Amino acid sequence: MLRGGYTGKILRVNLSDKSYRIEDTPVEMARDFIGGAGFGIKILMDEVPAKSDPMGEDNKLIFAPGPFTGTSVPCSGRMAVVAKSPLTGAVGMGLSGGEFPAELKFAGYDVLIIEGKAAEPTYLWIKDDQVVFRSAKKYWGTRTFDCQQMIKDDLKDQNIRVACIGPAGENLCRIACIINERRAVGRKGLGAVMGSKNLKAIAVRGSKEVPIYDREAFKKAVAAMNKDLRESPVTYPQFSKHGSVLAIEATSALGIFPTKNWTSTGLWDPIKKLGVEANARQIIGKHRCHSCPVGCSQIKMAREGKYAGILTEGPEFETLYSLGGTIGVDNLDAVIAGDRLCDELGLDTISAGITIGFAMELYEKGILSDEDTGGVKLTFGNEEAMLDLLLDMAYRRGLGAMLADGVKIAAEKIGKGSEKYALHIKGLELPGYDARGAKAHGLNYATSYTGADHNRGYAFQEIFGVPIPEPVDRFAAEGKGRLTKWNQDMRAANSDCPIVCSFMLDQAFATTALQRTADTLKALTGLDFTPDTVYEVGERVNNLARVFNVLAGLGRKDDHFPERILTEPVPDGESKGHYITREEQEKMLDEYYEARGWTREGVPTVETLKALRLDEAARMLAERQ
Amino acid sequence: MLRGGYTGKILRVNLSDKSYRIEDTPVEMARDFIGGAGFGIKILMDEVPAKSDPMGEDNKLIFAPGPFTGTSVPCSGRMAVVAKSPLTGAVGMGLSGGEFPAELKFAGYDVLIIEGKAAEPTYLWIKDDQVVFRSAKKYWGTRTFDCQQMIKDDLKDQNIRVACIGPAGENLCRIACIINERRAVGRKGLGAVMGSKNLKAIAVRGSKEVPIYDREAFKKAVAAMNKDLRESPVTYPQFSKHGSVLAIEATSALGIFPTKNWTSTGLWDPIKKLGVEANARQIIGKHRCHSCPVGCSQIKMAREGKYAGILTEGPEFETLYSLGGTIGVDNLDAVIAGDRLCDELGLDTISAGITIGFAMELYEKGILSDEDTGGVKLTFGNEEAMLDLLLDMAYRRGLGAMLADGVKIAAEKIGKGSEKYALHIKGLELPGYDARGAKAHGLNYATSYTGADHNRGYAFQEIFGVPIPEPVDRFAAEGKGRLTKWNQDMRAANSDCPIVCSFMLDQAFATTALQRTADTLKALTGLDFTPDTVYEVGERVNNLARVFNVLAGLGRKDDHFPERILTEPVPDGESKGHYITREEQEKMLDEYYEARGWTREGVPTVETLKALRLDEAARMLAERQ
Repeated sequence: MLRGGYTGKILRVNLSDKSYRIEDTPVEMARDFIGGAGFGIKILMDEVPAKSDPMGEDNKLIFAPGPFTGTSVPCSGRMAVVAKSPLTGAVGMGLSGGEFPAELKFAGYDVLIIEGKAAEPTYLWIKDDQVVFRSAKKYWGTRTFDCQQMIKDDLKDQNIRVACIGPAGENLCRIACIINERRAVGRKGLGAVMGSKNLKAIAVRGSKEVPIYDREAFKKAVAAMNKDLRESPVTYPQFSKHGSVLAIEATSALGIFPTKNWTSTGLWDPIKKLGVEANARQIIGKHRCHSCPVGCSQIKMAREGKYAGILTEGPEFETLYSLGGTIGVDNLDAVIAGDRLCDELGLDTISAGITIGFAMELYEKGILSDEDTGGVKLTFGNEEAMLDLLLDMAYRRGLGAMLADGVKIAAEKIGKGSEKYALHIKGLELPGYDARGAKAHGLNYATSYTGADHNRGYAFQEIFGVPIPEPVDRFAAEGKGRLTKWNQDMRAANSDCPIVCSFMLDQAFATTALQRTADTLKALTGLDFTPDTVYEVGERVNNLARVFNVLAGLGRKDDHFPERILTEPVPDGESKGHYITREEQEKMLDEYYEARGWTREGVPTVETLKALRLDEAARMLAERQ
Repeated sequence: MLRGGYTGKILRVNLSDKSYRIEDTPVEMARDFIGGAGFGIKILMDEVPAKSDPMGEDNKLIFAPGPFTGTSVPCSGRMAVVAKSPLTGAVGMGLSGGEFPAELKFAGYDVLIIEGKAAEPTYLWIKDDQVVFRSAKKYWGTRTFDCQQMIKDDLKDQNIRVACIGPAGENLCRIACIINERRAVGRKGLGAVMGSKNLKAIAVRGSKEVPIYDREAFKKAVAAMNKDLRESPVTYPQFSKHGSVLAIEATSALGIFPTKNWTSTGLWDPIKKLGVEANARQIIGKHRCHSCPVGCSQIKMAREGKYAGILTEGPEFETLYSLGGTIGVDNLDAVIAGDRLCDELGLDTISAGITIGFAMELYEKGILSDEDTGGVKLTFGNEEAMLDLLLDMAYRRGLGAMLADGVKIAAEKIGKGSEKYALHIKGLELPGYDARGAKAHGLNYATSYTGADHNRGYAFQEIFGVPIPEPVDRFAAEGKGRLTKWNQDMRAANSDCPIVCSFMLDQAFATTALQRTADTLKALTGLDFTPDTVYEVGERVNNLARVFNVLAGLGRKDDHFPERILTEPVPDGESKGHYITREEQEKMLDEYYEARGWTREGVPTVETLKALRLDEAARMLAERQ
């Protein structure tokens, strides 16, 4: 079945001894995991002990653009970054777009594996086959945009692309992200992993073309994908015009846009100030990631008052939720300022915002005192406090030191019953869709291998009413186990592995998606993919990640919702009165595990794993203590 | 005498009718004015009525790199920008380094003349012989660094160089500057001229080499200049290591580093916090302008507290004075934050700082009230107020609106006798050398065609004790007229016209300088320069600029020092007790005018002008009302 055209390469870099080597990507890995997140998770599983310290030398940081990346496949200009997450203790996987991922491909690599730990602040300068370890002492402490520019200036090449960490990553904040250009590898603290390795930045310049096995077939396959995209009722003209801000309108209408740390919902008045119309006024341009015909990413500028002239790429929906809704800030200009600050500091906007919203609720409830806040009135809506806290979190100062590692650790430090206001699953803060009014979306939060991650199995059926594979009742618990499995597998198979942007719902979920992915992969790599084998990759990736998590010590208990979801009905709006009962939670998990072929404890069975050619994983599970 | 090798080109752009044309640079202009500031002033004189409104359509904005720019002549990567100044009403001329000036040469131009006014926000995209007028509506309001990056992204070319204005220029603040990369065309409000033309930015990409007439001779000439530079006791190792911050030490030792709006001097304690040692701790890298072997420009980062991680190119000596000393701020991190903010807003640091220092003195004296400041305690040393005021000045908000046009207009608006605390000459705020303890330096402030501008005739004899052309007593008034003329002519001839960085004192003033300039010019252009003709260009430029100023309505009265210099002896330190008496002022002016061959009113005589081949200027003077 395997054919000879496959030419993938891995660049393996060891920071401890400043060595590197270029390896052939095993063709079996390409067949079984496609690329991107699949490669990242496979390598993590093979090479990083599940119980290892995420901030220790044993952890590895794996950058993996997909096979599609760097080609003309629409919306493919992205990469997965994988490591054991210091925020969740589980598989950490985040994606970012822009130009860096394609540049890594142009340098010749499907995967960049970073091993070990540099003795001193270091950056990597990768120019095709050459890798140079350079001192990053002078860049240590710089913010991410300045850092990128300085490296380009110092290397005298403005066409270099740079991924780097900011002060948050340097200071090992467990909610730190990695920034390339103005894009973020968000969530899961991958910036802290980079910081723990003393790796400030990776600079890349490539001069190669991505090899294509069958040019004619590839051209046809890409044309078919472009046609699907063009004909989608969502992508054009809506998504290309409004970007993910569209979700504000959708979630508001459904009453699932959480505000004030999930104590109210999308019908809260000021949403008008954060919605499509309000954002449209601040848009000054759009940004397209490599090979993207859509260009959903908007560049916005604060217009008035003290934030006037501050510019950011975004805020996208999730940041409008996290630095707006959930902390009760309805001044879009302040959200723009916060978004920019997070990008410069290298701080994940979702995790940072939810953690600040949590602190605001604690302050309003009297659990945090004026003494704790240094005299700041930390009430919902205090935008200046938000901006100050972002800085304090990145630099671990004052109350910021308490909040710098996300809401779970903050609650542990604060105690006093604060955990029940801490909105996270596996330590990952909840995204901006209220699970109480979208239960498949919620079940995906609960079961995603990365923690409460909307993007690993986005329930577009509930949010946008798309009846694929079938219509659903968003309030129902029944049937959501099977649906969530399908959503997660489809996302991994069509989006996270090949890679296509997860915002391209059409490619990820349309009835034609598996066929398109298979055709394009086949033409590109010469490997004999079919819709069935592509889907199977999705299953395989989700199962292998679960095995890693189980080996790391996670199980059914870690798939549980936060207290508030289980005990407090949505207080207002179109989802008023709804919540997830403990009984529903358990029923959904049972159904999900069953659909996956896992035990009632949420552990993949030997049969399931063997059917997916994951024999080694099965052996490791059997041998665990 | 003229030879045929001269190949200069002028790009003339008209924003009103969106036309452009490329003209041959007249070879007579090259012979008589060399280039750079010389070309700018000659064109200003020929084409802009001296009485015209600086913010009106008649004013022109002239960008002129020198003949040396874009070649291997050391420290030549700069350009002059000339217009009638909205701050002084006189010739406005500022210089900037970086890469933009050389790029303009690579596109083929010695001069870029911007005429007229665009109907809507516009930017120019100059790619060799192609000029495109593009809408800058989307960039309007952006800060300068973001603006540059957005234009590069939008034009899909990271190697483009951009000069642009920030909000201060858009809002027509008369102390707005133009920013290219992290460099500024400072002082004299040239950013406001650009703003008045609705011109947000100029993007340039060139692919040509600068033509060299005689390569062998040129190589020799450049080698001789490099040798002078290397052998200088100042440039290496001191200046390349510390940059202009060296001047803090020098002026402190002489007691002429003004602090708190010139009410104290360099022996004020906190200077230790702003000096060489303090700055060295914040330096994270250096920046070299095109063709610069010295690299005096330092990139510094704030280290502690709320400004941690803020990075700037600078602050150089003048900004340490203006955002530090003169407003009583001894926190270097705050000065760094202020410098960065000024660059992003497109605000001149010297003018902005001196204007804020003025407001602080008025507040401390009770002339400005809490009501005027919006409740802010605007005392010396209030660094937060400084940062807030910079924003408010750029956006013309609150007290900032009053201060946005510099100290002269602020004093006119405020009244109440505030003019006597307003430190400016011709409307240009005083730089960081106390004229009371360096009287040639002072006389240059008084007589420079641009207003109180340290760079047009820097008295290095007084500041660094260099005995060229002869030793001087810095407190003496006598002899300073002749010296100032020489300093100004040498600076124009060797530095502002060819162009060599004015920080390269060796090239500007060493005994070999005129010979080096002549040799290099001759080799480069084929024009028959000698040390004498080069020096004569310096005289010609200073005379022609003076004619423009006289025609604009300026005269002897505008060459006077501010009240404080004439009435308040230096209160402390190594220059304690010294000041410039009114008698000394008049004596120095008499001597200077006489040395220049001007009337007692400071008007160039017909004989002087004709001897310099400025017959047309003489005719215009004769015809003035």
